[in-house]
Amino acid sequence: MLNVTVWNENRHEQKNPVVREIYPEGIHGAIANFLTTESVNVKTATLDEPNHGLSDDVLNSTDVLIWWGHLAHEEVEDAIVNKVKQRVLEGMGLIVLHSGHFSKIFKTLMGTTCDLKWREADDKERLWVIDPSHPIVEGIGEYIELEKEEMYGEHFDIPAPDQLIMMSWFEGGEVFRSACTYQRGKGKVFYFRPGHETYPTYHNEEIQRVISNAVQWAKPTERNMPVYGNAKPLEEIQEKN
Amino acid sequence: MLNVTVWNENRHEQKNPVVREIYPEGIHGAIANFLTTESVNVKTATLDEPNHGLSDDVLNSTDVLIWWGHLAHEEVEDAIVNKVKQRVLEGMGLIVLHSGHFSKIFKTLMGTTCDLKWREADDKERLWVIDPSHPIVEGIGEYIELEKEEMYGEHFDIPAPDQLIMMSWFEGGEVFRSACTYQRGKGKVFYFRPGHETYPTYHNEEIQRVISNAVQWAKPTERNMPVYGNAKPLEEIQEKN
Amino acid sequence: MLNVTVWNENRHEQKNPVVREIYPEGIHGAIANFLTTESVNVKTATLDEPNHGLSDDVLNSTDVLIWWGHLAHEEVEDAIVNKVKQRVLEGMGLIVLHSGHFSKIFKTLMGTTCDLKWREADDKERLWVIDPSHPIVEGIGEYIELEKEEMYGEHFDIPAPDQLIMMSWFEGGEVFRSACTYQRGKGKVFYFRPGHETYPTYHNEEIQRVISNAVQWAKPTERNMPVYGNAKPLEEIQEKN
Amino acid sequence: MLNVTVWNENRHEQKNPVVREIYPEGIHGAIANFLTTESVNVKTATLDEPNHGLSDDVLNSTDVLIWWGHLAHEEVEDAIVNKVKQRVLEGMGLIVLHSGHFSKIFKTLMGTTCDLKWREADDKERLWVIDPSHPIVEGIGEYIELEKEEMYGEHFDIPAPDQLIMMSWFEGGEVFRSACTYQRGKGKVFYFRPGHETYPTYHNEEIQRVISNAVQWAKPTERNMPVYGNAKPLEEIQEKN
Repeated sequence: MLNVTVWNENRHEQKNPVVREIYPEGIHGAIANFLTTESVNVKTATLDEPNHGLSDDVLNSTDVLIWWGHLAHEEVEDAIVNKVKQRVLEGMGLIVLHSGHFSKIFKTLMGTTCDLKWREADDKERLWVIDPSHPIVEGIGEYIELEKEEMYGEHFDIPAPDQLIMMSWFEGGEVFRSACTYQRGKGKVFYFRPGHETYPTYHNEEIQRVISNAVQWAKPTERNMPVYGNAKPLEEIQEKN
Repeated sequence: MLNVTVWNENRHEQKNPVVREIYPEGIHGAIANFLTTESVNVKTATLDEPNHGLSDDVLNSTDVLIWWGHLAHEEVEDAIVNKVKQRVLEGMGLIVLHSGHFSKIFKTLMGTTCDLKWREADDKERLWVIDPSHPIVEGIGEYIELEKEEMYGEHFDIPAPDQLIMMSWFEGGEVFRSACTYQRGKGKVFYFRPGHETYPTYHNEEIQRVISNAVQWAKPTERNMPVYGNAKPLEEIQEKN
Repeated sequence: MLNVTVWNENRHEQKNPVVREIYPEGIHGAIANFLTTESVNVKTATLDEPNHGLSDDVLNSTDVLIWWGHLAHEEVEDAIVNKVKQRVLEGMGLIVLHSGHFSKIFKTLMGTTCDLKWREADDKERLWVIDPSHPIVEGIGEYIELEKEEMYGEHFDIPAPDQLIMMSWFEGGEVFRSACTYQRGKGKVFYFRPGHETYPTYHNEEIQRVISNAVQWAKPTERNMPVYGNAKPLEEIQEKN
Repeated sequence: MLNVTVWNENRHEQKNPVVREIYPEGIHGAIANFLTTESVNVKTATLDEPNHGLSDDVLNSTDVLIWWGHLAHEEVEDAIVNKVKQRVLEGMGLIVLHSGHFSKIFKTLMGTTCDLKWREADDKERLWVIDPSHPIVEGIGEYIELEKEEMYGEHFDIPAPDQLIMMSWFEGGEVFRSACTYQRGKGKVFYFRPGHETYPTYHNEEIQRVISNAVQWAKPTERNMPVYGNAKPLEEIQEKN
């Protein structure tokens, strides 16, 4: 059984009836619904819960954490961010969605500003598959088309991804690296661009498939953790003058 | 004219006569000496100077910053680290040496613990060139051999390097990724392993050649900075329902 | 059910009683034995069979092909190599072992000479895990130690691997990139260094675990193949002067 | 002095008055003109010359080779392709332009089909800079806009580039990895997409700047070539049972 926690800021849903109509159970609820299967156990957590819903117990039992935030990145407590980071470095998978590019957890794992161009103008988006052999795009065709989305454009200030899986075309003239993987410590990190709150993107079955695939890709492997620090020699070292 | 600043913690040199004998002008002095040429202007800066020697004027006029620290990483003020990071993201080159793997600036740019195995036992080290076409190893043969060095061993908890240029063999049985490049923002970062304070490593001419090459590699390019934020469309966007 | 074909040159086994004693069923037989499970169906194929055992039927029903060759790379017919290459580019996984670095199939997929240093002198080898989160090293500790192996040393003339998973330390003073992944077309390629014919390397349980993991990693994903060639526009193109 | 050879198929120029009008000295002549400086010596070579203009003398004295071909890839003799490949692996830089993606030399260095989508329909192209710190885009702004070009679309069947520097947006709805670097042997390879023969692309000053930058990036470094083959141990190897 794989344990997934979907974290959502859950503020747009409270303020904006358009968002509430699209996601009556919240973005977290929508994602939890399509991820849940017989072998995937999904919980949700939101900003305004105690510890943002991310107690030590929750974090320690989470195999893959999904992160959606936008309005209130600064309200996420540093202490919680540090714990999430620690867990990623120990092996927990992390999937950062859309405006989560500016979340504290993503920025601290990337080491860059994670800045980009953006526009809310109903751009058509077409996400082209660049690496068709990658398990994250299993079952996806040549591209995913979204009739309307927020535009994110290059330059996207991220480290060069370990793997670049999809690139977006936008109607207004921009491109974007939309599906990127990173290894950080023993954890796997996946950034996936689409998902502006005023569009029904997470109801799109291909988008759902990508996120479901990413959960399987990001899950921790069974491993003996490396040992750090002062190390005895494994071979004899000759004495020198 | 290229402007290089060599930053050194400069504490071992004050405390340990062995280090002072090897580096009578400090590690920073030794590095500044071999880097200085008609076209490379080198300054030094140390921890105990005001602002650690890294005033805004110094940082803003530095093309490539070299960093050596070990005992006192925690004494480097966060405000200065943030300014250095900002400058790297804007394009300043950064060369991190040896125990600088645990410096605040390297860890914040990497996003990982940067932990490793280590041993002070006079291991022989042999740095093998993995990428012989890289300009950083121009003029270097198949390997550089150091009779005695501190051992650093894998697992080295860093993101997968953009380019892996050299790997070390150690007498006591370990290996290490010793020469790694990263792009962060508009800046180039190079990590280079050798240089424990009690060995005359920075007097080795091949080590000097690598660091000199790295300075040329890491220097900023002439460029128009990308623009971030809200962006007008470059193409007409169709109205949608 | 996953279909694996283990291809072996199977010449050393005929000529050398030492090899025959270690691998009475051939290297291919030994590998087939440990790979076979309820969900993995394994066939073998050897050089001296018609079509080298790689008929169109065999190739078309193979999900992952394992390749061991050494003495007789030149005897492998170009027509068969071309078919194997075609299948890899279409999605078949390929695992190249040890002296297979000089096989026609590996060289044509890499585009380089794939040359290296070597020595048969009972070197101890220690394969250090560099990427502990990679599924290919699931269940493996910090390193695998082999008491005696042929040495392969850098420079190894390969393209920079997509992922570098293990690096070897050799008693005689060399290092080597021993576990490397590549994407080629829609296929996944894994090169794994150990396995000289005069040592019982493929009886080592950790080596077996790596190869078993690699089979799972390299298996094809379900996908719609990209379409190439002349493409109609997806958006209206303005007429220009 | 850097020695550059610009190789051009030079067939469109003979057949098509439109091309001849745009490039009265041939595509090779146009490129040679803008590349020539006091420190860059440029020669040209074309398909219909003896040895395609690529005698051993020419190849051995070329630091960087530029390749433009389209109609007649199959007429390039394998013996010449093998010599070019050998020289690249030894350190000669190679810049492959536009329809050269299907040249024998590019395909044999990549190991893949190098296939793609294409369309001749006066698409507008916008090449976005993804890696603004790369020396190949020194002096270039956020993007290069070409009013009309042939479209090349993903999936582009290449190995994952070592560095992805620019991505194209096309009016008709596609994206493309347009500026890619690869290391092969001791040589550096750069693929650059634009340059259909019926458009004046190589008269665009920004396109010229990219190619000029790429020549400097791809030039060989001074180095001792690695030694391959049977290697004596550098350290004593213990006798084992």
